[in-house]
Amino acid sequence: MQIAIVLYDHVTALDAVGPYEVLSRLPCADVTFVAEQRGAVRCDSGRLALLADAELAEVMEPDVVVVPGWSGSPQDRWLEAGTLQDWLLTVDRHTTWTASVGTGSIVLAAAGLLIGRRAVTHWLATDRLAAHGVATANQRVVVDGKYVTAAGVSAGLDMALRLAAEIGGDSMAMSIQLAIEYEPQPPFDAGSAATAPAAIVTAMTAVRDFILDGAG
Amino acid sequence: MQIAIVLYDHVTALDAVGPYEVLSRLPCADVTFVAEQRGAVRCDSGRLALLADAELAEVMEPDVVVVPGWSGSPQDRWLEAGTLQDWLLTVDRHTTWTASVGTGSIVLAAAGLLIGRRAVTHWLATDRLAAHGVATANQRVVVDGKYVTAAGVSAGLDMALRLAAEIGGDSMAMSIQLAIEYEPQPPFDAGSAATAPAAIVTAMTAVRDFILDGAG
Repeated sequence: MQIAIVLYDHVTALDAVGPYEVLSRLPCADVTFVAEQRGAVRCDSGRLALLADAELAEVMEPDVVVVPGWSGSPQDRWLEAGTLQDWLLTVDRHTTWTASVGTGSIVLAAAGLLIGRRAVTHWLATDRLAAHGVATANQRVVVDGKYVTAAGVSAGLDMALRLAAEIGGDSMAMSIQLAIEYEPQPPFDAGSAATAPAAIVTAMTAVRDFILDGAG
Repeated sequence: MQIAIVLYDHVTALDAVGPYEVLSRLPCADVTFVAEQRGAVRCDSGRLALLADAELAEVMEPDVVVVPGWSGSPQDRWLEAGTLQDWLLTVDRHTTWTASVGTGSIVLAAAGLLIGRRAVTHWLATDRLAAHGVATANQRVVVDGKYVTAAGVSAGLDMALRLAAEIGGDSMAMSIQLAIEYEPQPPFDAGSAATAPAAIVTAMTAVRDFILDGAG
């Protein structure tokens, strides 16, 4: 089973690496990081680069596609007509699952793949996803047909475990969960706008345009 | 504040990228991925490479060091006397925090940095950590003085949020938790040996030597 994880400039590393760490442990999985060009792709912080081992054009029949999100780019080239959008439209005809993490759902939506569907994105970008004709949901993971979307960044882990269960069965997914010791104990109850202190939610919403560059 | 995240061949990607995704969001943070040589470092699955932006020798006074774990290597070179072990001993004299994720604590222990201290590692490698004179703990995150160790793989997220709170205060850590939407909802209660089905724990323990190459 071929799994393509898409990389592009300003990608959020954990959006990509969370699902990778889960899905690459499926015995049937053949995970490939793909991008417009092979080689290093710089993440949003500027302090990390991930390597794309294949060009998009080399992986034309993946069974699973995962599109991570991005932040802080002055130009959202990946939302415009072009190589990535063309590739997504083509490979989506073949996929068993088309998935995203965080603002990655906006990339799928820009390709028209989520019109009329339920999906989720990073909580700061919900309006932006809705603008593409998507029924936005306030859930951590949303499954609508073969489209599986996750909320921001760390939600890719929960999404990928759901996908691992769909692909390999519950026991396989539980084995992977144990292998990565995913028994979360966040030190604070602040992981969503509903639970974080109001002052923090307000402050982060106020700088949303800066964080997501025009999101909302 | 300079934060060095160490990379070496066969590293587990999420061990490194989880803490990166949290710590790089600290406004005071200057995160650098370091390795013996600059350039691509292939992870344990073989399906992903992360880029080291600096050689160890270029970052000699980090305030925080994070050592991720590894799996499945035929040669655990990083446990032997050599460049990485020498570097760890030298920079540890300067650090405010020396941290690890998963089997990364065994790298610290091999350098003698955890003798007589409490620490944790990946659940399958506890005996191996204990063999270095470490008091192993059955906790997700252990803080003993300036040494902060996390259990396997995904535990690096919880560890890094603890560290973010120590460095930047609780509000800052909560802001980061909200930014990465860390409100985990694992689909199964199988993230530790205490909660996973016994058959899965038994099976994984049986192949432990294969997974960790002689661990235990």
